[in-house]
Amino acid sequence: MQKSDGISDSLFIRACRGLPTERPPIWMMRQAGRYMPEYRKVREKVSFLELCRTPDLACEVTMQPINEFGFDASILFSDIMVPLPPMGLAVDFTPGPVIAQPIQNESDIAKLKTFDPNEELSYVMDAVRAIRKALPSDTPLIGFAGSPFTMMTYCVEGGGSKAYPKTRAMMYGNKKATHALLSKLAQVTADYLVAQANAGANALQLFDSWAGILPPSGFEEFALKYAKLVIDNVRERLADQCVPIIYFANGCAPYLNVYANCGADVLGIDWRVDLAAARKALGSVPVQGNMDPGCLYLPPEELRKEVISVIEKGRSTPGHIFNLGHGVMPTAPMENVRLMVDTVKSWSA
Amino acid sequence: MQKSDGISDSLFIRACRGLPTERPPIWMMRQAGRYMPEYRKVREKVSFLELCRTPDLACEVTMQPINEFGFDASILFSDIMVPLPPMGLAVDFTPGPVIAQPIQNESDIAKLKTFDPNEELSYVMDAVRAIRKALPSDTPLIGFAGSPFTMMTYCVEGGGSKAYPKTRAMMYGNKKATHALLSKLAQVTADYLVAQANAGANALQLFDSWAGILPPSGFEEFALKYAKLVIDNVRERLADQCVPIIYFANGCAPYLNVYANCGADVLGIDWRVDLAAARKALGSVPVQGNMDPGCLYLPPEELRKEVISVIEKGRSTPGHIFNLGHGVMPTAPMENVRLMVDTVKSWSA
Repeated sequence: MQKSDGISDSLFIRACRGLPTERPPIWMMRQAGRYMPEYRKVREKVSFLELCRTPDLACEVTMQPINEFGFDASILFSDIMVPLPPMGLAVDFTPGPVIAQPIQNESDIAKLKTFDPNEELSYVMDAVRAIRKALPSDTPLIGFAGSPFTMMTYCVEGGGSKAYPKTRAMMYGNKKATHALLSKLAQVTADYLVAQANAGANALQLFDSWAGILPPSGFEEFALKYAKLVIDNVRERLADQCVPIIYFANGCAPYLNVYANCGADVLGIDWRVDLAAARKALGSVPVQGNMDPGCLYLPPEELRKEVISVIEKGRSTPGHIFNLGHGVMPTAPMENVRLMVDTVKSWSA
Repeated sequence: MQKSDGISDSLFIRACRGLPTERPPIWMMRQAGRYMPEYRKVREKVSFLELCRTPDLACEVTMQPINEFGFDASILFSDIMVPLPPMGLAVDFTPGPVIAQPIQNESDIAKLKTFDPNEELSYVMDAVRAIRKALPSDTPLIGFAGSPFTMMTYCVEGGGSKAYPKTRAMMYGNKKATHALLSKLAQVTADYLVAQANAGANALQLFDSWAGILPPSGFEEFALKYAKLVIDNVRERLADQCVPIIYFANGCAPYLNVYANCGADVLGIDWRVDLAAARKALGSVPVQGNMDPGCLYLPPEELRKEVISVIEKGRSTPGHIFNLGHGVMPTAPMENVRLMVDTVKSWSA
């Protein structure tokens, strides 16, 4: 079932499928966010969590960058922490995520619940439906989730971390518990992504924000394996739909030789990798990325050159989605975001 | 001038020079630290800053891991922030470093002072002399400093950071200021390292803890170039001494093709790179690293296997110093540190 011809013919979906496009499509990680005054205005009225949990507001901020800059794809405004409360882990934002009762052992893991996201996370599905309705009929909507490994780090550390001591202690000291936790997170993540697609998301991105803390063998054992489990599970359940899946392992440089084994349609490339080198290492798989978010502070003429350089490196093989190599920063100048979008949109071979 | 035959014949110095050794020498980043009860006992009495600034106590904690485990090299107990106050930037630890008045523009940079480390940091030189006296005559002492790029991030952000927005805004938005700041930091760093060597340090390590946030082109322009400036300057001024220099760019995976251009005697390799792959990419330059600090949580038999695997990967070319790929974590079990040291010391081809 195609959601609409406009969507399946869009630059974004074509690039995800590795088809030739006249120019790369562009969207930007965290494109709905604090760098936009309209977003900050909404945040004056509600907390981050309330914003995620109020479909009309989530829809409003998701649409802001589409209306302002004309990105080629939109992404659901939400947070990767969202599935944790229905699993039984309360999350607060102060402003970073804080889990009061982190996972310590196998008995904690056994207590974690799987759940029906259409019931427990109905506010997300309502947001997806509202956004899909608000979007131009040919602009794809990307749903997303955190990958099992990245979610594990939050569950075990109880929040963000610098050195991940508890995650590492569990990973190396108690492999059985680690694999039990990752398996449960993989199940929840797959259910959650399938529900988003069924509510109207046209593509799905799996964020492995902290995969880059792993040595190469650990990346395969703890990150890649469970990303693949999620991707295979989602793909099987959405076999009758064209919903490309993007896997983004932040800090992927050491793992390029195995990265494509995740089975995703598209691989996200962070800003620390030369895109031409990544293309060479990865073969013909479509890629997404990877301008340094810091480039948005460049003077206009240099920014334009950087954008074109990324386009040209991505162009070596069909299937390049232009994006930053990480989320846009809250202090990025609006006019430079506009210049980046306009440069991509007016580019031609 | 050789400091002593014992030192120049030591496994550590021989490995730094790329000479064959019967086994790799071993030391460990943060080997004097919170994982040791003796260290925690000292810290109950004094703050981190007082400890750095009291030569007798700095000597005491530097000696603790040497006496306890018999590491093949010692490293000065200090902190990379130490040169900032004499430059005019007050630093507090809460517990991470906080600079109340971060650098914002060229006028701030112009005000930064260069200084004579023998006067302004006499407490460091006193500590170096005390440690050199306390150490066995054949155990080398490593002095160290933060690299210009890493120090710049602290100067500009005012402390640690996740996304380095101010560093990136300066780096991309004001290259002139960036290069002025990096040049001044390079001068101070070189002076500081030369003074440590003259006080008795037998080798020097330049820590580029945050180089890994840079795209490959930025690594060359902002990190590598200034590391090389420091290394060349120090080497010229210590031309009559054998004082090997180690450059450790944390997160070096994307830069292996240019890493050796820093001109260091030894390249530090973090835990995210496969050591065999790094060896292959780097050629015959001596390397230091790179077991995942998390491996210290493994059960004994698996830890032993990991240690041997790192030794065997490092062994492909002469010149491997066994180390962790990052600092030891405060919760690492003492008995596993001992097992790691004993496994390296009892290894034979």
